[in-house]
Amino acid sequence: MPLGEKAGFEKSQSRYCGVETEFNDDIPQLLNFNLSTGSFDFVVAPLMNPTYRPSLLEKDGVLPFAASDLVLSPSQWSSHVVGKLSSWIDLDSEDEALRIDSETTLKQEIAWANHLSVQACILPPPKGASCANYARCVNQILQGLNNMQLWLRIPLVKTDDDAMDANSTSFIDSWELWNSFRLLCEHHGQLSIALDILSSLPSVNSLGRWFGETVAAAIINTDSFLTNGRGYPCLSKRHQKLITGFFNHSIQIVISGKPAHSIPRPSSDLAANNFDNNGESPQRHPLRPYLDYVGFLFQRMDPLPEQERFELGYRDFLQSPLQPLMDNLEAQTYETFERDSMKYIQYQRAISKALLDRVPDDKASATTVLMVVGAGRGPLVRASLQAAEETGRKLKIYAVEKNPNAVVTLHSLVKLEGWEDIVTIISCDMRFWDAPEKADILVSELLGSFGDNELSPECLDGAQRFLKQDGISIPSSYTSFIQPLTAAKLYNDVKSHKDLVHFETAYVVKMHNIARLTPSQPVFTFTHPDYSTKKSNQRYKRLQFEIPSDTGSAMVHGFAGYFDAELYKDVHLGIEPSIATPNMFSWFAIFFPLRTPVCVKSGSPLEVHFWRCCGSSKVWYEWCVASPNASAIHNSNGRSYWVGL
Amino acid sequence: MPLGEKAGFEKSQSRYCGVETEFNDDIPQLLNFNLSTGSFDFVVAPLMNPTYRPSLLEKDGVLPFAASDLVLSPSQWSSHVVGKLSSWIDLDSEDEALRIDSETTLKQEIAWANHLSVQACILPPPKGASCANYARCVNQILQGLNNMQLWLRIPLVKTDDDAMDANSTSFIDSWELWNSFRLLCEHHGQLSIALDILSSLPSVNSLGRWFGETVAAAIINTDSFLTNGRGYPCLSKRHQKLITGFFNHSIQIVISGKPAHSIPRPSSDLAANNFDNNGESPQRHPLRPYLDYVGFLFQRMDPLPEQERFELGYRDFLQSPLQPLMDNLEAQTYETFERDSMKYIQYQRAISKALLDRVPDDKASATTVLMVVGAGRGPLVRASLQAAEETGRKLKIYAVEKNPNAVVTLHSLVKLEGWEDIVTIISCDMRFWDAPEKADILVSELLGSFGDNELSPECLDGAQRFLKQDGISIPSSYTSFIQPLTAAKLYNDVKSHKDLVHFETAYVVKMHNIARLTPSQPVFTFTHPDYSTKKSNQRYKRLQFEIPSDTGSAMVHGFAGYFDAELYKDVHLGIEPSIATPNMFSWFAIFFPLRTPVCVKSGSPLEVHFWRCCGSSKVWYEWCVASPNASAIHNSNGRSYWVGL
Repeated sequence: MPLGEKAGFEKSQSRYCGVETEFNDDIPQLLNFNLSTGSFDFVVAPLMNPTYRPSLLEKDGVLPFAASDLVLSPSQWSSHVVGKLSSWIDLDSEDEALRIDSETTLKQEIAWANHLSVQACILPPPKGASCANYARCVNQILQGLNNMQLWLRIPLVKTDDDAMDANSTSFIDSWELWNSFRLLCEHHGQLSIALDILSSLPSVNSLGRWFGETVAAAIINTDSFLTNGRGYPCLSKRHQKLITGFFNHSIQIVISGKPAHSIPRPSSDLAANNFDNNGESPQRHPLRPYLDYVGFLFQRMDPLPEQERFELGYRDFLQSPLQPLMDNLEAQTYETFERDSMKYIQYQRAISKALLDRVPDDKASATTVLMVVGAGRGPLVRASLQAAEETGRKLKIYAVEKNPNAVVTLHSLVKLEGWEDIVTIISCDMRFWDAPEKADILVSELLGSFGDNELSPECLDGAQRFLKQDGISIPSSYTSFIQPLTAAKLYNDVKSHKDLVHFETAYVVKMHNIARLTPSQPVFTFTHPDYSTKKSNQRYKRLQFEIPSDTGSAMVHGFAGYFDAELYKDVHLGIEPSIATPNMFSWFAIFFPLRTPVCVKSGSPLEVHFWRCCGSSKVWYEWCVASPNASAIHNSNGRSYWVGL
Repeated sequence: MPLGEKAGFEKSQSRYCGVETEFNDDIPQLLNFNLSTGSFDFVVAPLMNPTYRPSLLEKDGVLPFAASDLVLSPSQWSSHVVGKLSSWIDLDSEDEALRIDSETTLKQEIAWANHLSVQACILPPPKGASCANYARCVNQILQGLNNMQLWLRIPLVKTDDDAMDANSTSFIDSWELWNSFRLLCEHHGQLSIALDILSSLPSVNSLGRWFGETVAAAIINTDSFLTNGRGYPCLSKRHQKLITGFFNHSIQIVISGKPAHSIPRPSSDLAANNFDNNGESPQRHPLRPYLDYVGFLFQRMDPLPEQERFELGYRDFLQSPLQPLMDNLEAQTYETFERDSMKYIQYQRAISKALLDRVPDDKASATTVLMVVGAGRGPLVRASLQAAEETGRKLKIYAVEKNPNAVVTLHSLVKLEGWEDIVTIISCDMRFWDAPEKADILVSELLGSFGDNELSPECLDGAQRFLKQDGISIPSSYTSFIQPLTAAKLYNDVKSHKDLVHFETAYVVKMHNIARLTPSQPVFTFTHPDYSTKKSNQRYKRLQFEIPSDTGSAMVHGFAGYFDAELYKDVHLGIEPSIATPNMFSWFAIFFPLRTPVCVKSGSPLEVHFWRCCGSSKVWYEWCVASPNASAIHNSNGRSYWVGL
């Protein structure tokens, strides 16, 4: 039975909680006890008798699997059972006989699980620091696996840098083990992680890395629970926060271990709580209090805000950025963006301030020429008129728009609102318009997720011809930002295209299953108007990121890109996480992938270079990593990804 | 005029020696002076006036190139002129104006050089430790370049580890600069190196790395020369050895700088040695003594041995390994291998020793049953009979061969030699032959470059059925070896196929332009006969290589593979460089590439794993690097490369 109902979690895997069990060859009884009596949603159960060793089995003997495939229906196998591979398996042992037995058994058990159509199998944790032979064997299996997932069990352990010299043999960071394993398996999409949550947790920064990885399940041992005042199990604040993170990232919880709390028995529950009791008396599952506590944490969470729920389907989904200059936007796109009221509130605030600065109270009757360049269907015209009304200033507006389809809507809006005397509609590309007079204020919103990536600089260079020398551009400047990410899912989605072009393209993404490894840093800034003579929109920036040392080593799959725009003086608009305009949804972040993910060892700086290049018909970015190791230069000459002029 | 005639160097670029010159807008005179008077083969000349800066040039001004394209014929431009780009170019300067001027000039000069069809341009060395913007610009140019080569000039410098802390800012290893640059440019095939040779040289191990890179030229400044007893320029022993290495690797020498030795003038050469002297008197080029010395070093070299000359065309050429089990070899192939007399001498020695051990002198009249499995056209039958004659032992020989075409030759050989009474020819695959009696000695030569890679183990498993329990197998065992390499050319050739399959295939190669970074280590050993019950031909080996610390960081593009076989007791046969059988040419080394080259920093160990995997119809290798960073596992399930059973 799911942990609860909660807005935004209707389709999340994290509503389901499992329980790890011992080997039992009566699988139906095991299911009945844990699901019906215990209210768990699935079991993590061994599929093979743990005493089995291939080298001890007589030839042609029947393999000691738990039950036959017939004891459950295919849908029961797939919904309610996660296979657990024999924990003695050790493919990197020094003992060759054990290694060979391990390989045989691993292949037999996975073949059996595949036959049963279980959704996933949990692979035992690598036993030592080396896992190459284990990974080689799993990788071979992955090449021919149907739909089943393999979850590599990894204890959530990292010794503290401060307490331990990194060169000491007792330094452990289980993330590094995972990282080697998945590199050896080439980030295979069916390989994910089951994290073992222990009673002590590593630093917050180090935990953060896992949210950029493909964690499928978190296994919490009863030992990791504390005891509350009434004798019931509970978790530390840090554990609670981590579990909430898991819920938010669709990571399923699995309870494991023996009951470690003696719960006061409710008076109505006097019958013997015996596993083998087949009588009528209500049984109680010994791990039920732990499940109840996890359910309590789930139910205590805030539901997702409406906007977040609306965007659920976009999470970690790669979209190609708009090309509004080359292409004409569709009505649906205008519709969506016009609903972003916060954006227009900020514009109205900026225009109001500019009007007050430009026209003193004693000259309030003077008319200000304001041009909206890229007027679309008119929202910035409306914001301008509202600013005029708010400030008591008089406007003459030119609404310049290159999309003839949007101009149709603009005309009917002006007519409908009775703005004919104030607003002149110009159906023309601003770069080529021959304006009849010059503007006091130039209002535009040509910004992409990365600021200049929809060619705002090139458009406004064209438009500033008809801005007065002392005129105001709103926005007056904008800056792009980048931030290194662990983003295994995004990387895998890019990789699935199996070509260079997709690895050298930037994507608009509602980022969710990612780890932001450092604060972002500014990249390119553009200021408007700019009347300098040797003006160029080419840019080059070298950036140096320091991943916090308590994070440990980390994998960089690419970079998140953001922008922040100064509309006018202190009125900002942007999506850079630390200063983002709240409740605004017009822009998701942008994602610049790396063709080969870069592993940054703890303490090493990450040096990144970004270029904005301009040709006669297109603008493009190139990017590379220079340190710790040099990558290829991505998107040379804009061969894969560019924005048309 | 080339440095000299020498067997094996007829087609080598290293016969030609160039001279670096100052800017001169009279290119014909420059050529005449340096080629006719100076006897150099080509000039390295600036193509643009060094005082030029694009930002200072008036608009629409003519670029101050050296001469027009018409002053030389196209073939003169391409044979005798290497362009030298302006040395002030600095694309990674902090000064943005200089950066932008540098980019403009770089593109103008390369466009001009391309217009002239010169073979190559020398790019000035990166000015600092960072070269990302320089590499980005060069990489852009490389995408659209026709046939011209770009030679990045790199000073041959590496500060000593012992003298300097690696973290100190004054630590310099110019190889690392090159490595970053070429990684940023993705190992582009038209980007190579012009090494500046200074008066002091780094350690031998560190120098060795460059022989695995694409070095096109070595520029020796006159400052780097010493003075001999007669006042003439000469080089230190270490420099001499290096230059000989350059000759052997087709690296052209360029003399640079001002004359630094005052040479005693021959009495017949009294006329003024003046550059501008147009009179009849014989001119003398001021750098001629340096050229003469380089010519002396060239002429002093030993000519290439005949076998090496024969193999010149195979140098660094990737061949697919033979599949003699699946395919039948052609007559030409037998012909080539049968000429390798050293191999048969070793077999004869081994068989003689085995015969003497097996048959004491007092039983010399006893007949020994010897089976040659994989007899081909009969060379091992002949070696066996010669051993019998040499030792005075009596043989009964079965010659087993699966290739019906070779059996034809075998029959006529036996008839021709009159061996009918001794030799029985069996036209059958040894794995399936039903032998009429058991053998005392089983002789085979089923070895590939990597020992077991032509499935000798599987074949001999089949053949040992008809070997007596105390019988002898020749070879009695064999071991494969691997060794990490820098091999930029091989890597580029593999990469040029643009697919995964070629990166997961092993190649037979006459390795030449490579750097062997460490001694080799043994991988898999097979022993014959092997009557153990749980016998398997699967193998797994984990190897740890330590690159000598004075090498510095190094790039591993893949691994050289070798074998060594114990034929009988102390009679060996093999190609592992340190113990290779001399004068044997049947086997080149094997090359296992890496999909992504691994940069190993100085002092870091390189951990490598190799597997030999066996399926029902094929045998294959998988390999990976586990440290410093995990690579993908190559050739999973033999998806790209396998040997058919």
